[in-house]
Amino acid sequence: MVSRNPRSCPAGRVGILVRTMSKPLERTEVVWHAHGVPREDREALNGHAGCVVWFTGLSGCGKSTVANHVDQRLMARRVHACLLDGDNVRHGLNAGPEMLADRGAEFARRFGLGFGPMDRAENIRRVGAVAELFAQAGLVTLVAFVSPYRSDRAEVRRRIEAGRAGSFIEVWLDAPLDVCESRDPKGLYRKARAGQILEFTGISAPYEPPPSPELHLRTDTAPPDQLADAVVAALSARGLIPAT
Amino acid sequence: MVSRNPRSCPAGRVGILVRTMSKPLERTEVVWHAHGVPREDREALNGHAGCVVWFTGLSGCGKSTVANHVDQRLMARRVHACLLDGDNVRHGLNAGPEMLADRGAEFARRFGLGFGPMDRAENIRRVGAVAELFAQAGLVTLVAFVSPYRSDRAEVRRRIEAGRAGSFIEVWLDAPLDVCESRDPKGLYRKARAGQILEFTGISAPYEPPPSPELHLRTDTAPPDQLADAVVAALSARGLIPAT
Repeated sequence: MVSRNPRSCPAGRVGILVRTMSKPLERTEVVWHAHGVPREDREALNGHAGCVVWFTGLSGCGKSTVANHVDQRLMARRVHACLLDGDNVRHGLNAGPEMLADRGAEFARRFGLGFGPMDRAENIRRVGAVAELFAQAGLVTLVAFVSPYRSDRAEVRRRIEAGRAGSFIEVWLDAPLDVCESRDPKGLYRKARAGQILEFTGISAPYEPPPSPELHLRTDTAPPDQLADAVVAALSARGLIPAT
Repeated sequence: MVSRNPRSCPAGRVGILVRTMSKPLERTEVVWHAHGVPREDREALNGHAGCVVWFTGLSGCGKSTVANHVDQRLMARRVHACLLDGDNVRHGLNAGPEMLADRGAEFARRFGLGFGPMDRAENIRRVGAVAELFAQAGLVTLVAFVSPYRSDRAEVRRRIEAGRAGSFIEVWLDAPLDVCESRDPKGLYRKARAGQILEFTGISAPYEPPPSPELHLRTDTAPPDQLADAVVAALSARGLIPAT
């Protein structure tokens, strides 16, 4: 039954291959269907709820920094968390055309994501779907994306809340554009001002503030560790993670 | 700093809004950069490695059933796992055009995934990228997809192994086509034979067997609980999960 060094198989259509070379010696009459492990069992194992903490705000407002501080605090509390941000998503799941070029021009053109409104919508739709999977797996799922469009965030909220009411925590990290631009940690504002980046949020593309985020934090008047404390306190106050 | 009932904000471009109405009262001179929580810390918290267990095989070969049995066994051992399969991915992350219709025809056409070779490649590319994120989060990530093309699986393997050698476990669930077709749990073979489904693996689209999977299990001669035991034993033997 188990072959750790299976025979080498020629490429081809296993259907045809199998039908000409074998009949099953014995056919088990087992009912073949799936019983999923419930989300609640995964959460019980972890000792806390699975949920999505969605950080939104301008480039340079501190999303990645605050999210990483939160991540560290959760680890210190033995809370099972993960972090989805541009660094690990835009280079994999939501790669741009230039990163898919080795798969051929048509593939890259069809599936690579840019920064126009429709591409941003698809970017956020995918990240939301993945965040939902992580929440269902019982993790406190930190998501740090500019996510400038209200309707895109609202659709993610709708899906996540449909799975579990109260499990979507929107955190607006709010700083004035000139503060974000003066930080310019990746040099993107400079390029956007020079016209080298098109459709840049805050410069040449809109940012639509959340009308009713669970948390609204100013990031120009407090350091990231204080902001992270506020996020962790909010998760605790909502009963999503243990109090201590 | 923290506003739980933030003011209602008008839609619009916050960049322009902020520049005309406010200057920050105080600007903290904090270094704003991110320190990620290492994968090893998440694995230490979980008590086992993060890895990807990739089930491949024909429709009806038992992928979801065996993967769910494995999932249950891992839960019983307090191993942190998750399961990605068609049920939770093709309805979200990799939705088809018909499921994206409410976002408009152009969006659905552009981003909805079908079942042609290029769409299947993108389907597996995305699932592989998400599996990588789950493995990095320290979970034993069970993936159950037909994934008929060798090159698509090889590319996922390459990425996962680049992150951690030995963390991609390919499990070929192998049953003769006539066995899978006689099970036909979703009635798909019947539809494929009737020409109602095009490009159906084993009937009108190829299945390329893995040349060297970590495990090769026949699913027509053993019940799913025995197969699941074999998978769990293999994970334990490779040191990916504790022995007991």
